[in-house]
Amino acid sequence: MKLHGIFPPIATPFNYDGDIYTAKVEHNVTKWNKTGLAGYVVCGSTGESVHLTVEEKLQMFELVAKYAASDKILMAGTGVESVRETVMLTNRAAEMGYKAVMVRTPHYYKNLINNAAAQTLYYRSVADQAKIPLMIYNWPQATGVDIPADAVNSLSHHPNIIAIKESSGNIEKVMQMLRETKPGFQVLVGSAPTLAPSFAVGAVGAVLAYANAAPYSTIAIWEAHRQREFDAAMDWQRRIARASVLVTTKYGIPGLKHAMDLNGYYGGPVRLPLTPVSPEARQEIEAAFADLKG
Amino acid sequence: MKLHGIFPPIATPFNYDGDIYTAKVEHNVTKWNKTGLAGYVVCGSTGESVHLTVEEKLQMFELVAKYAASDKILMAGTGVESVRETVMLTNRAAEMGYKAVMVRTPHYYKNLINNAAAQTLYYRSVADQAKIPLMIYNWPQATGVDIPADAVNSLSHHPNIIAIKESSGNIEKVMQMLRETKPGFQVLVGSAPTLAPSFAVGAVGAVLAYANAAPYSTIAIWEAHRQREFDAAMDWQRRIARASVLVTTKYGIPGLKHAMDLNGYYGGPVRLPLTPVSPEARQEIEAAFADLKG
Amino acid sequence: MKLHGIFPPIATPFNYDGDIYTAKVEHNVTKWNKTGLAGYVVCGSTGESVHLTVEEKLQMFELVAKYAASDKILMAGTGVESVRETVMLTNRAAEMGYKAVMVRTPHYYKNLINNAAAQTLYYRSVADQAKIPLMIYNWPQATGVDIPADAVNSLSHHPNIIAIKESSGNIEKVMQMLRETKPGFQVLVGSAPTLAPSFAVGAVGAVLAYANAAPYSTIAIWEAHRQREFDAAMDWQRRIARASVLVTTKYGIPGLKHAMDLNGYYGGPVRLPLTPVSPEARQEIEAAFADLKG
Amino acid sequence: MKLHGIFPPIATPFNYDGDIYTAKVEHNVTKWNKTGLAGYVVCGSTGESVHLTVEEKLQMFELVAKYAASDKILMAGTGVESVRETVMLTNRAAEMGYKAVMVRTPHYYKNLINNAAAQTLYYRSVADQAKIPLMIYNWPQATGVDIPADAVNSLSHHPNIIAIKESSGNIEKVMQMLRETKPGFQVLVGSAPTLAPSFAVGAVGAVLAYANAAPYSTIAIWEAHRQREFDAAMDWQRRIARASVLVTTKYGIPGLKHAMDLNGYYGGPVRLPLTPVSPEARQEIEAAFADLKG
Repeated sequence: MKLHGIFPPIATPFNYDGDIYTAKVEHNVTKWNKTGLAGYVVCGSTGESVHLTVEEKLQMFELVAKYAASDKILMAGTGVESVRETVMLTNRAAEMGYKAVMVRTPHYYKNLINNAAAQTLYYRSVADQAKIPLMIYNWPQATGVDIPADAVNSLSHHPNIIAIKESSGNIEKVMQMLRETKPGFQVLVGSAPTLAPSFAVGAVGAVLAYANAAPYSTIAIWEAHRQREFDAAMDWQRRIARASVLVTTKYGIPGLKHAMDLNGYYGGPVRLPLTPVSPEARQEIEAAFADLKG
Repeated sequence: MKLHGIFPPIATPFNYDGDIYTAKVEHNVTKWNKTGLAGYVVCGSTGESVHLTVEEKLQMFELVAKYAASDKILMAGTGVESVRETVMLTNRAAEMGYKAVMVRTPHYYKNLINNAAAQTLYYRSVADQAKIPLMIYNWPQATGVDIPADAVNSLSHHPNIIAIKESSGNIEKVMQMLRETKPGFQVLVGSAPTLAPSFAVGAVGAVLAYANAAPYSTIAIWEAHRQREFDAAMDWQRRIARASVLVTTKYGIPGLKHAMDLNGYYGGPVRLPLTPVSPEARQEIEAAFADLKG
Repeated sequence: MKLHGIFPPIATPFNYDGDIYTAKVEHNVTKWNKTGLAGYVVCGSTGESVHLTVEEKLQMFELVAKYAASDKILMAGTGVESVRETVMLTNRAAEMGYKAVMVRTPHYYKNLINNAAAQTLYYRSVADQAKIPLMIYNWPQATGVDIPADAVNSLSHHPNIIAIKESSGNIEKVMQMLRETKPGFQVLVGSAPTLAPSFAVGAVGAVLAYANAAPYSTIAIWEAHRQREFDAAMDWQRRIARASVLVTTKYGIPGLKHAMDLNGYYGGPVRLPLTPVSPEARQEIEAAFADLKG
Repeated sequence: MKLHGIFPPIATPFNYDGDIYTAKVEHNVTKWNKTGLAGYVVCGSTGESVHLTVEEKLQMFELVAKYAASDKILMAGTGVESVRETVMLTNRAAEMGYKAVMVRTPHYYKNLINNAAAQTLYYRSVADQAKIPLMIYNWPQATGVDIPADAVNSLSHHPNIIAIKESSGNIEKVMQMLRETKPGFQVLVGSAPTLAPSFAVGAVGAVLAYANAAPYSTIAIWEAHRQREFDAAMDWQRRIARASVLVTTKYGIPGLKHAMDLNGYYGGPVRLPLTPVSPEARQEIEAAFADLKG
């Protein structure tokens, strides 16, 4: 299965009571269906997965499966600390028609699991029991764990582990994995500010929070890359530079949801302890997205 | 409410199918009931809370409440990333008779919440809605977030926030909080290797993983402290030095569970990705606990 | 040789042309001579050793040796990255009558030397060639290197390595080294905010920047400890809490020099890129030192 | 002045007594003169500048100036912690005909200077007094300080600050500086493993330890880039991948010196606490450089 192109890790819409706003899932997915996005990642970090109960995750899996166009690849974010619960969520997603799962590195008991052996054991254990293929998800800025390239190389030989989403922004690591993993293993990136050079060195796709709000601009970079138009890709890269930092590193999900609201998607509120962006941040986001429509 | 003395954050017993082993909860709690432990913390980090479902947490709260002696103070570990779920778990624990909750720092979206303002908002939001008092829980070695002393000082003025469990081992911070928090705010520590000096500078209690396996030795330090026998406390401190490091920093919960098995408690298996200790580690633990009985 | 009690790592006085102000070396040393300080450390971190040329270091060694009272123990800060230059400086200090040297951990080529083997090699190589005994100096907050307790334990068996100044503030490490190093090996600390508990667990001395400005209060803690009056030590500890943080962690050497000026010592300017403290910081320091005279 | 192309930060040759081996400076420089290298950086990190006395640095400046071909741009590494000594070294290099200086970030007093304001002050103070232009040098892996892109943007407006050597390997930061610094400000990189993508996004040159041993392969990447042959650049990039990691991150200067010896340059010994590479490492280096001649 090819995970090529741009995937938004979709934001979970809440109403003002704090519950999942099912009508807005339909609204957003229907709108994204019209774009060239390759598919959707449901319940990733941007989907506030750590703020959702198990029931809510399953609800989101179901809703997105229902509204997604048939040509979109569905991936479910199912990684939690324990192998047991990750496998359960994974196989529930499989039953709903998901094609792959994205599983973040376990990271809580750092003194025991922040090493290649423990990470490898975790992913092998999940993949052995998973009914659909697995994509490793590495985001050290949140987890405090950076799975070593050597561990990824080793895991790439597992028949049920087909990809990594590397969100560190570390291009040297991306290059090393591209050289050393099993042929066919797919390296996706998760950092919009380095998208064009990541594609240039060989990444085949990207899972980008920013793509929730302004998918066309990221697809433009992807298409420029496919046409081998690196200068055009870099032009687009420069155009999204400010906006993509605002809705990730600087203002995170609250900033992204505001940008979604600006661009005709439903962003809406976040769950505490996240808080809405300030009026000043709103202005900054509005200025940055003025030329970046949904 | 006084949280003085020694509390074990109790290990969650699993059977060899990986399910909660209810008979062993009774076994362990009944045995601890005979000691001078001040109470129990259920579903803390040592209880593998991150490996438990919501249902399993509630089950553990219920089981421990059922078997605990009436003089033991019951605290529930209820902190998860979202305010909403933390409040829900907290108030379920309150209904079961728990006297307080221990709530760890939120930490996943570090770029947004690793600061005093966001941490303060989180704890205020939980405490405002909690039906029982709250103890902050800070363990930066796992979470990557170290709540600043200034934030704790500010939170100590909330009527429903009564204590902190500081597990960093940072005695300078403990001393600063003891000087600057509201009178009556209680500072407990979570690091066995610095227990005696922590009491000496004013900590009133401790939540210690090590106390699952060898409670008497930690109670000995507490009692020596209460008698103002610092040299006796330090003697005990030296006696537990090696053992307490083995079952925390070095071998973590798997090491602790082995030590529990040695000392007449039920330790049993851990959940993946944690793994049983190696034969060499077992020997090391056995040697260290030879003179430290349960 | 016993390194017991309080040593200031003396600030290097500069005139307003930026040169060493020799008359003020005499002034400060003569004034410190009247106190119960155990001795002086010349060209440590607080002495801005990294801002001094080799010639200036030798000049400072000479000046302090000239003015120090005969009962004060003289230690020279001689550690630089290379073994070769450290040995040269060490043996020049020995010729001038210094009794020991303080040698900080090498740290620039972190990928190669931030490990126990390289640190051990460095200290053995220096100690083998040094004509006077050596005290290891560990300050990870500046160097980014934290020499492991195990390496210190091993080095304690070298006949010419007699002590460590541990400035991390990590009391667990202090306790571990006290348990595991060769009997007679001396553990000093470098963190004023945890002075009383450090003595309580067994540290025999301290090298304290703060002692440049207000030596009597640190000697009071030392004397209370020697009389086994822990409560009195803690009372003093609380009295110096705010002031000692201001002239180290918060405002560093510029803050310390201002406090020295307040207390009848010559502080004077710092070298760029350090800069004088702001008027607001001055007021804060003045308030904190109001009751802490030199 | 254009700092385009490849510069080796030249290794300092020592004889087996540990002194600078002047004849080998001539040997190496004469051999590099025949290549397409753009110039030389003398007394950078790879030149073991932290292991050299002031006199030895000046000697190296003089020797390289004497033997360098007239078309090679000469840069001197003059950054030390104090502004005063950095300016002195800078202006001595200027007198010897050096065209620019490379000045690393100050980093020892981290609590005071690890911020944009202090870094900016340092560089402005040096640049104001320097008789030749200055290139900022950022290597957070060694210094523990990462000068923020915003500070670099601000400094780019100083008429005497013309470039940065960014050795972090962080391409997002490189891209941000290329977008936001003053037009004409030059961004060079210091990380061989990401050379091709760094050029692709706009870096104009590189200072590469690896280029000491195998300059032709790095010049090949540079020339491919100038011809806009990205695929050819990436081919070369893959060819040097293993070798460039071995002589930097993995085995550092000792590894590099061994590779120099293999390729007809004089590498020779390093100064303690650095140590020669092991026989196993030698074999690994020999295998990696088998097809990468000098």
